[in-house]
Amino acid sequence: MPEGTAAMTPRTAPDALIAELKDLLGERLSTAAAVREQHGRDESFHPVAPPDAVAFAQSTEEVAAIVKACARVGVPVVAFGTGTSLEGHVAAIHGGICIDVSGMNRIVAVRPEDMDVTVQAGVTRKQLNEHLRDTGLFFPIDPGADASLGGMAATRASGTNAVRYGTMRENVLALTVVLADGRIIRTARRARKSAAGYDLTRLFVGSEGTLGVITEVTLKLYGIPEAILSAVCPFPGVAEAVNTVIQTIQTGVPIARIEFLDDNQIRAVNNFSKTSYAEVPTLFFEFHGSDAGVAEQVEMVQAIAAEHGGTDFQWARSTEDRERLWHARHNAYYAGLSMKPGGKGFSSDVCVPISRLAECIVETKKDLEASDLFTAVVGHVGDGNFHVLFVFDPDNPAEIAEAKRLNARVVDRALAMDGTCTGEHGVGLGKMQYLEAEHGRDALDVMAAVKRALDPANIMNPGKVVGV
Amino acid sequence: MPEGTAAMTPRTAPDALIAELKDLLGERLSTAAAVREQHGRDESFHPVAPPDAVAFAQSTEEVAAIVKACARVGVPVVAFGTGTSLEGHVAAIHGGICIDVSGMNRIVAVRPEDMDVTVQAGVTRKQLNEHLRDTGLFFPIDPGADASLGGMAATRASGTNAVRYGTMRENVLALTVVLADGRIIRTARRARKSAAGYDLTRLFVGSEGTLGVITEVTLKLYGIPEAILSAVCPFPGVAEAVNTVIQTIQTGVPIARIEFLDDNQIRAVNNFSKTSYAEVPTLFFEFHGSDAGVAEQVEMVQAIAAEHGGTDFQWARSTEDRERLWHARHNAYYAGLSMKPGGKGFSSDVCVPISRLAECIVETKKDLEASDLFTAVVGHVGDGNFHVLFVFDPDNPAEIAEAKRLNARVVDRALAMDGTCTGEHGVGLGKMQYLEAEHGRDALDVMAAVKRALDPANIMNPGKVVGV
Repeated sequence: MPEGTAAMTPRTAPDALIAELKDLLGERLSTAAAVREQHGRDESFHPVAPPDAVAFAQSTEEVAAIVKACARVGVPVVAFGTGTSLEGHVAAIHGGICIDVSGMNRIVAVRPEDMDVTVQAGVTRKQLNEHLRDTGLFFPIDPGADASLGGMAATRASGTNAVRYGTMRENVLALTVVLADGRIIRTARRARKSAAGYDLTRLFVGSEGTLGVITEVTLKLYGIPEAILSAVCPFPGVAEAVNTVIQTIQTGVPIARIEFLDDNQIRAVNNFSKTSYAEVPTLFFEFHGSDAGVAEQVEMVQAIAAEHGGTDFQWARSTEDRERLWHARHNAYYAGLSMKPGGKGFSSDVCVPISRLAECIVETKKDLEASDLFTAVVGHVGDGNFHVLFVFDPDNPAEIAEAKRLNARVVDRALAMDGTCTGEHGVGLGKMQYLEAEHGRDALDVMAAVKRALDPANIMNPGKVVGV
Repeated sequence: MPEGTAAMTPRTAPDALIAELKDLLGERLSTAAAVREQHGRDESFHPVAPPDAVAFAQSTEEVAAIVKACARVGVPVVAFGTGTSLEGHVAAIHGGICIDVSGMNRIVAVRPEDMDVTVQAGVTRKQLNEHLRDTGLFFPIDPGADASLGGMAATRASGTNAVRYGTMRENVLALTVVLADGRIIRTARRARKSAAGYDLTRLFVGSEGTLGVITEVTLKLYGIPEAILSAVCPFPGVAEAVNTVIQTIQTGVPIARIEFLDDNQIRAVNNFSKTSYAEVPTLFFEFHGSDAGVAEQVEMVQAIAAEHGGTDFQWARSTEDRERLWHARHNAYYAGLSMKPGGKGFSSDVCVPISRLAECIVETKKDLEASDLFTAVVGHVGDGNFHVLFVFDPDNPAEIAEAKRLNARVVDRALAMDGTCTGEHGVGLGKMQYLEAEHGRDALDVMAAVKRALDPANIMNPGKVVGV
């Protein structure tokens, strides 16, 4: 499925650069094949493209020194957090140096009174929430994987909680970034709002390492709600489930999570997580608020669901029950893969205006049902975002072609509805082919102009997001 | 108070350009002195700098044609909405053509089912909310002035509701923009979230016309709350009032508005709006939610206020009573000016992390009380944002110098607290001098690189935001 890799020339790191980085980092610079291989892949189907070496950085200053050394000889730099991206973001398709920031896992400052935190880029979301446990605060963005917060900022990640708390776009207050020439900037102060010049924070959020390397992230935090309640409810059909979501959002219920899983996905979840949900289109919910507020939300959502034939709510109130429920949901991708031993998966990620969501999913399901491929639909439907997981035999060209055909139809359908080809996974290698249809040539030219302005030698994760 | 205007060379529009635009626009191209004068000023103290001509555009395509004509001869373009900016944003300090978009006042599409709307840039926020009246939806961002939505996007405006609903940064879904060479782009689709490339929407929001001219804006809308309740409460001192705000925010109360007015500001309001509030530090509140939700919020805020000596709540429930209350608040600027006949005003706009807010305002009040100048403090304190209005005799250099001295101290204090020099007014001419202290030279270089990449001939509102 990888695209756009044809005409690229690897720019191999010269021995002198490797030696210079070895001097700087000692044992923390690795050229071992296994280490390079592990850093040349993410969780997607895109083929491995190992870097020439992996530099395990421990500070912003070290990242700056590595980038400076690479810039001097025009060698690419690819940042690496946990390798959980889904579009080949970390593949070193031009060769070069991978900067692994997983060792930059220090929580720099927690400021409960300002409800914000500054972390090094390698801190993962679970590590952060574990650290926050006694403060009464939490960081809500949850893409499923225990990704690094630097990586989540770089890909503009979101996930199940975004319908209430927003995405990384809304929750990053400031970044420390190493530029393509090794200079270090901070993109903003900690004030909650500012009109002091161009929004550099939002420029780097979602830039996927192509404009600079994110080394520190300052994030908004939220008070842990007084009451949290989760639920699962089966529906008679796809349209009934999705229309329940649409009406919930339009009514303004401040729901924290509202997730759709189709019949195939539920079957896969039951198989993988040993659950016994009815194998029909299903919604997973979570309500956050005061006791009274949650009760009010529940009452509204139950009434809406009942209008659409959804009456059999299963509730999860205790932390353990809620965790079990969301664990099953979070493993949906692996559950899908488990349905075809030896199969590989890839996932669409379209997002449409909510009024078009039912139509978009229903039409897509018709396509999928007419295919022999195993597919599963799961989605952050409160935002209009859903994924189709395609599971195929990587050695069977006909299955690969079928997955590509179905995926292209999902993307075309979403774009025709004024939607986007990627709600949260990012562009990487896999979505570059759709950006012109989504944004138009002239808007892509603006992106390319920004890329050239900030990275004139094209060394920052080259060949991703936007061609130059 | 204007800064940075010294070394600028006006690039006067040649007669041939004026003739070309006259051909294009007929009567809608004006070179009348009064029209030019009116378009060379905003509501600030910055001196008038009239453009060479004013083009009254009626469509995106017309704006594109005007920009193309200007680009061919390297003449500056300054976009103009309602002229209610506060930092000299529209002053044509290099000469050139002003594009007045106030005639682009068409509401292009209201989509209640998606809770969004697309408007031409000249639509004002009051016009939009009037139009939405029967839909049950509203657009919350309220900077006081009845500004154009294009201008609000261009300056990253916010105001009294931002504490709950965010600023223009969070509420613009997509923009149509005319680039510096006259090409037209749309920055994003209408999906609520997207990870499809660089965030062009956020790049243009807050760029103050220096990267392109915004011609259409797609905005999020919100359901009008079931219950709205406003209140005014006096406090024994500045610290008590501000600490009530801090605790309210830290408790996570989803308050819609929480505004601070100091004793001088209340005195000015009483004088100007014929109200009779106690002339002490005061908070103005607004609560949005369900009936039960508002009751719960009120209970929590009353308890917090009582701990800080704020017990005398005056409630406003009916639309008329609430409008009277907020009308008084919105006229705070004019009320302040009324305290010194013939006086001119300018306003600081710092924003700090909320934990530092009480200290910042208390220290600032000490400075102000030691001065003979009339000053008033008013703020969107839920965000950490407040304004000091300095009122002075424009013919008295000592008073001007004193205002500048006090203002510089407020900015320095905010920056030392990891705050910003401008929370919502934008940079324009007046704040350029503070950007290096706020962002550092290297981050400013990134802004300048972006500016040069998108506007290589420096014709888009030149001399504002960032020097190139």
